[in-house]
Amino acid sequence: MLQSKLFLKTKRKISKEKAISARLLIRGGFIEKLASGIYNFLPLGFLVLKKIERIIREEMKKIGGQEILLATLHPKEIWEKTGRWEKMGDLYKIKENGSQFALGPTHEEVITPLVKKYISSYKDLPVFLFQIQTKFRKELRAKGGLLRTKEFLMKDLYSFHATKEDLDSYYEKVKEAYFKIFERCNIKEKTYLTFASGGTFSKFSHEFQTICESGEDTIFICQKCKQAINKEIKLQTKSCPNCGSKKFKKEKAIEVGNIFKLMTKFSKPFELTFLNKEGKREYVLMGCYGIGLGRLMATIVEVNHDKKGIIWPGEVAPFLIHLIPIGNVRKVSDKIYKNLKEKFEILYDDREKESPGEKFQDADLIGIPLRLVVSEKTLKKNSVEIKLRKEKKVKLVKIKSLKREIEKCSKRI
Amino acid sequence: MLQSKLFLKTKRKISKEKAISARLLIRGGFIEKLASGIYNFLPLGFLVLKKIERIIREEMKKIGGQEILLATLHPKEIWEKTGRWEKMGDLYKIKENGSQFALGPTHEEVITPLVKKYISSYKDLPVFLFQIQTKFRKELRAKGGLLRTKEFLMKDLYSFHATKEDLDSYYEKVKEAYFKIFERCNIKEKTYLTFASGGTFSKFSHEFQTICESGEDTIFICQKCKQAINKEIKLQTKSCPNCGSKKFKKEKAIEVGNIFKLMTKFSKPFELTFLNKEGKREYVLMGCYGIGLGRLMATIVEVNHDKKGIIWPGEVAPFLIHLIPIGNVRKVSDKIYKNLKEKFEILYDDREKESPGEKFQDADLIGIPLRLVVSEKTLKKNSVEIKLRKEKKVKLVKIKSLKREIEKCSKRI
Repeated sequence: MLQSKLFLKTKRKISKEKAISARLLIRGGFIEKLASGIYNFLPLGFLVLKKIERIIREEMKKIGGQEILLATLHPKEIWEKTGRWEKMGDLYKIKENGSQFALGPTHEEVITPLVKKYISSYKDLPVFLFQIQTKFRKELRAKGGLLRTKEFLMKDLYSFHATKEDLDSYYEKVKEAYFKIFERCNIKEKTYLTFASGGTFSKFSHEFQTICESGEDTIFICQKCKQAINKEIKLQTKSCPNCGSKKFKKEKAIEVGNIFKLMTKFSKPFELTFLNKEGKREYVLMGCYGIGLGRLMATIVEVNHDKKGIIWPGEVAPFLIHLIPIGNVRKVSDKIYKNLKEKFEILYDDREKESPGEKFQDADLIGIPLRLVVSEKTLKKNSVEIKLRKEKKVKLVKIKSLKREIEKCSKRI
Repeated sequence: MLQSKLFLKTKRKISKEKAISARLLIRGGFIEKLASGIYNFLPLGFLVLKKIERIIREEMKKIGGQEILLATLHPKEIWEKTGRWEKMGDLYKIKENGSQFALGPTHEEVITPLVKKYISSYKDLPVFLFQIQTKFRKELRAKGGLLRTKEFLMKDLYSFHATKEDLDSYYEKVKEAYFKIFERCNIKEKTYLTFASGGTFSKFSHEFQTICESGEDTIFICQKCKQAINKEIKLQTKSCPNCGSKKFKKEKAIEVGNIFKLMTKFSKPFELTFLNKEGKREYVLMGCYGIGLGRLMATIVEVNHDKKGIIWPGEVAPFLIHLIPIGNVRKVSDKIYKNLKEKFEILYDDREKESPGEKFQDADLIGIPLRLVVSEKTLKKNSVEIKLRKEKKVKLVKIKSLKREIEKCSKRI
């Protein structure tokens, strides 16, 4: 893509946002604030969002998830069935003539009666359904850019089981899938499986908490087993629910995902039952599993940045390569661009008025993993300068071996 | 995909819906009604939706569109600027403490001030931005399944120009892109470019109207040039605005797209201006271009079906192949499935309780383009029976030449 054509304007001035991810995403032209807790995704931000979406979709499919798309407008009646029409304080409610709707903040009230139509026997179970869809919650504490917003893209997976063993085993599979997602987003090392309250139906649920400066949550990491507990659990217990150790380290963190054994919490009010092997009627056991895509994007930035800007991990980067010509080398760099774009995702900084300094500053801010610089100096050696955003050293590479070098480098990003 | 694992249950009973597309999509397990004008997309429907999305995305990118994702919650203030907070009767409004929001039914109020931040000179123009996003409109006439709903996925493209010539020329490009989309969805032959009112800022806008039974609109097709006019224009004129002919044919149709020269309608209230080549300040000229994805899906079904069910055009089909074993042939058909699934999108009807009749009925209803039947009879000849959903004739094909034959057939669907 030609940078001169890209709908992008980086900002020098640091925005007022407190969280570093908000500042960098706004300054880098990835997102734009429409109102408190409400953001537009610009072309660069949209590209990252799609990459994150792809990772999540792939990992959900690997554990048997089938993708659907549920409605946003939920009739009041289904939310009254679970008592959450009144109980859930952050529900957006909307009127239309005689009817009332909730703007879906989560979808148990929609998916449970839906699945009921499909389940009669244990043979119909298990079922794994997920969607990637915009959710809405009244958010008084909206701040921190994409970390806490009123509308947000969320992946929500729901599982339905005949036995506790089956739910337990799937729950472990989801745990693994989540860590795989966080690994591909390069935040795994700082992300801790964290015990949280399980509500009335389970002893514990789990959060995935990523340590970072802008974190609003506090977690306590067990120094023995490296699992963590959240504030609420810390108040109830002095020892790690996983290994019993009493040594914890306190950290600020962001919740990037959560998984929850709902058990019969929703199957009861909606009478979601099945006939077991003995022909007896039982309630279906449910689990739910969420990841917010915008919050994940922000967390990736929280973990992957330096003073100059973002350092996108390869799998979520908007482009793989940022090609920057310096000086009177337009003809050769046009050729290099044409040659590379057939094989790689590449952003070509073909802008003519910007100084080399401005171009480098923008490149560091935007954070594309591989930077190629073409200048009169490099061309004298029939070469291009290659630099990984995350490393300091630059390397001259002969133009004829450029593709091979890029492929080699792209394994390290 | 194994059909026994697919979250799918076809319905024999014809639903009450009047529109044939609604009946077939519900019976075929593509969508499910949550409330009047509100639908959930099930796995099969979601697959079709993604195929449609891909076609639209590709064609928008070909004409320079850059993809973004705008917010759903719109502050009241921006809608007051254009007077549409009061004027637009079908706006969903929502309160949160002191603030009020509209649920975006269209995005001129968001994108115009956004683009304003990026435009200062004629050199920054043109700009083409699009998104594929859920829109909301109060819809009293909700009926016909996906043809008219309260929430709906829409592709909306906005263009920004320095001159009328540039807007005009881009408008023609969008026309072509739209017909390309409708061609790939196999509704082009029944889709007519239709003159509609242009509002206060343009003489005409254009709708794309597809002739079908369930159409709620009436169009008048010029018998000379094959362009059409809608009811409103028909009241104003007796001759075709394109060729002057007075011979029209009246038809029922569905609006599957519309394109509109907004001119300065939105750039004026938002003061979206630029400096022209002479250094003088001018208003930016705008165009907007919409396609509803759900409505398009329904229209494809309206045009592509027979008594037995849907006949998906190849590019939007949820799968390319429906593999159906009949009788005691499971081992061989498992092998064929394994072999084909590496190369093709294939649904394998591995269900054991269903009779051949039920399997064929389901296959016809779901409408996957290529049906392969494996039976003891076909295996005696080392063959598989192949049939196009849209044709009547069946053909025996040797197993060893199956892939080649599938590739040949897939060009005709």
